Amino acid sequence: MAEITRDEVAEGDQDEPNYNKERIKYSPEEERKLERQHFWRVIDAFRYYSTHVHEQVKRAQRQYRSLTQHHQSLLPSVLPNLTHISQCVEHNQEVLHAIVHNCIDMFENMEYGEEEELKKLRPASIFDMDKLKSTIKQFVRDWSEVGQAERDTCYLPIIKEIQRLFPCDQYDVSKLSVLVPGAGLGRLAWEIARLGYMCQGNEWSFFMLFSSNYVLNRCEKVNSLTLYPWIHQFSNNKRSSDQTRSVSVPDIDPQSLPITSDFSMVAGDFCEVYTEPDSWDCVATCFFIDTAHNVLDYLETIWKVLKPGGVWINLGPLLYHFENMANELSIELSYEDIRAAIVKYGFQLEVERESVKTTYTENDRSMLRYVYDCVFFVARKPARVYANGDREEDANGDREEDDEACIAPPCAKSPRRESGLT
Amino acid sequence: MAEITRDEVAEGDQDEPNYNKERIKYSPEEERKLERQHFWRVIDAFRYYSTHVHEQVKRAQRQYRSLTQHHQSLLPSVLPNLTHISQCVEHNQEVLHAIVHNCIDMFENMEYGEEEELKKLRPASIFDMDKLKSTIKQFVRDWSEVGQAERDTCYLPIIKEIQRLFPCDQYDVSKLSVLVPGAGLGRLAWEIARLGYMCQGNEWSFFMLFSSNYVLNRCEKVNSLTLYPWIHQFSNNKRSSDQTRSVSVPDIDPQSLPITSDFSMVAGDFCEVYTEPDSWDCVATCFFIDTAHNVLDYLETIWKVLKPGGVWINLGPLLYHFENMANELSIELSYEDIRAAIVKYGFQLEVERESVKTTYTENDRSMLRYVYDCVFFVARKPARVYANGDREEDANGDREEDDEACIAPPCAKSPRRESGLT
Repeated sequence: MAEITRDEVAEGDQDEPNYNKERIKYSPEEERKLERQHFWRVIDAFRYYSTHVHEQVKRAQRQYRSLTQHHQSLLPSVLPNLTHISQCVEHNQEVLHAIVHNCIDMFENMEYGEEEELKKLRPASIFDMDKLKSTIKQFVRDWSEVGQAERDTCYLPIIKEIQRLFPCDQYDVSKLSVLVPGAGLGRLAWEIARLGYMCQGNEWSFFMLFSSNYVLNRCEKVNSLTLYPWIHQFSNNKRSSDQTRSVSVPDIDPQSLPITSDFSMVAGDFCEVYTEPDSWDCVATCFFIDTAHNVLDYLETIWKVLKPGGVWINLGPLLYHFENMANELSIELSYEDIRAAIVKYGFQLEVERESVKTTYTENDRSMLRYVYDCVFFVARKPARVYANGDREEDANGDREEDDEACIAPPCAKSPRRESGLT
Repeated sequence: MAEITRDEVAEGDQDEPNYNKERIKYSPEEERKLERQHFWRVIDAFRYYSTHVHEQVKRAQRQYRSLTQHHQSLLPSVLPNLTHISQCVEHNQEVLHAIVHNCIDMFENMEYGEEEELKKLRPASIFDMDKLKSTIKQFVRDWSEVGQAERDTCYLPIIKEIQRLFPCDQYDVSKLSVLVPGAGLGRLAWEIARLGYMCQGNEWSFFMLFSSNYVLNRCEKVNSLTLYPWIHQFSNNKRSSDQTRSVSVPDIDPQSLPITSDFSMVAGDFCEVYTEPDSWDCVATCFFIDTAHNVLDYLETIWKVLKPGGVWINLGPLLYHFENMANELSIELSYEDIRAAIVKYGFQLEVERESVKTTYTENDRSMLRYVYDCVFFVARKPARVYANGDREEDANGDREEDDEACIAPPCAKSPRRESGLT
């Protein structure tokens, strides 16, 4: 079992940015209370799904019936299609129920309350319902055959780079530690572990954590699960059947990792969970850095936790998650600015591709498709430049020394406290 | 001058759909009052622009200053870039002021109030500010050199089809009338007129109407106008200079139409303005049909106003504009459903391409790009099937008869009341 721990909230850094002061004032007890509320809010969203989507379907039925008889007669397939959508909603709801079933015991070191809470069905916000719909699409991206092409564009460049930098004929890869922040439903981290690397996924969102726990630990058969990921999309459909088509998951048995693999998932905020310096050989970020309030916090954490000579591999766009949220810190940097900060920080940019075209949870039959023109880079923390996070001397880019530092590195010293997938 | 008239609100049809009852209850006087309010709301948006965007810039400045000194020192170009953005905002505001300058006299047959109103600067809604930002991007799409590639994918297929169906060596094209509903800033209609066809654009949005009036009637020199269309996009920029780059308009002198051209623009709701049957040889819709509450209303209007034997050419996706608006009728049909209704209505589908890839006001340097997989079709209203909107007999698709009906058709009898561009 890939058990997931909820990491304790770390103490605030001394030079915490101003925007965080608001948060720091909460006592640990208040923090835990807020987190419990958040936990239950997400559970509520999973359970409120069908009520919410049925409302949308009922609205569409009412609107259809408000049309003239003549117009209704021109559209004979609208009501049957809406009925079909309702059935798909019911099916999705069953899966979502299964995902949150028993999830209050999911974290071995955190208690979230009583099963009693599950008896009350509370309405969820539009915001949370949107997140849940995105989560359903993540199953396609990470664990369906349909998602293979997308994974090939997003994950393969990262995996290939890991294999190029740490080839298995030169390293005991089982001792090479790779951290994947923003792991989502875990496929990238899982694939890296499958190749023999020690790999840990980290994820903050309960939507993703509940779902990755389900797919990794409770989906045992290939294509055992059916989802209708596109029923929420009423615009840009060529055929009505495009909206109600199903996707099967998982395309591969998540429990089929080699017995020797070291794969784990850790719940919690990346910058709070990962505080131990010099503990990872590689940090791989995919569609992650733009989830930051301030991407420099991520950069700083990555610098800190990488071993000297370790590498940060990144692929993604810069769609800043907090851009349009009032009262949230959101620093929106261009790639040029981030790149300059990376170099100033002391990283050595070894690989840089500025135009890697990818998609993200794409509906490949939609009449509107989103194409991301991602940046891809490999930045190395030099082998001999710093102690305690301060630079001691210039990194002259001495490749031989860097390479040497990477040979047979020690195991990761990250704060993992859970067993690997068996 | 291409003067623009605001069409009187037409009387409601007898079998008006239910959702419209709400509107019909307004007296003509109340309707005019509501329209005046709407007119001034849009003017207010044009004038409130810089206040609104400066607020965003100030927020970004405050957030930057809340960072630690160390982080600020890693980001030396953020404040200079924000200052640069502010300058671009000021420039855009000047253009927007110019656009609405004198616009209360823009419609020859409608009065909207006193210049006095312009003295009060009233805040605009986020919704209206978003529309204004889209309007600025429309200048790029329709009237810049940068927009040429986009126009080639969106407008060229339509123009080529018009030329194929009504070749100038077989027709006196100056007597062939083409209607372009949803004309936006008028470029497609203008291009059709430039080829010698009689062409009229129709547009509902005041944002577009003010802007098309400006570009068509008051921009006399090529590239006389500079706009900064991308300054509102803080996410997905590779370089900071991508955000502040300028675009010049117009790429061509809008007043350079041949002296003989018959080009006009009419303001108003498509279904209300165009009620005269059998008056157009061609209706060309580009990214338009999904602006309907109920696309069948458009279909019905197009059927009615086309002459027997006339053609409807359409290109676009199905991104329904009212999908997420509470209290608005929104019938979201798949293309399959629309297609079935078109055929049931009596149109003959003569051309159909289901996958025409286009963009819409694309920022070609953005790390997130939207690709529309459009449908393109030509639907003909048969030459001999109906009277008063009812089918008399089956259309057997007799092409010879259809073609005959198109030879030397009479001039359009549409409710145009404005002069062409001189």
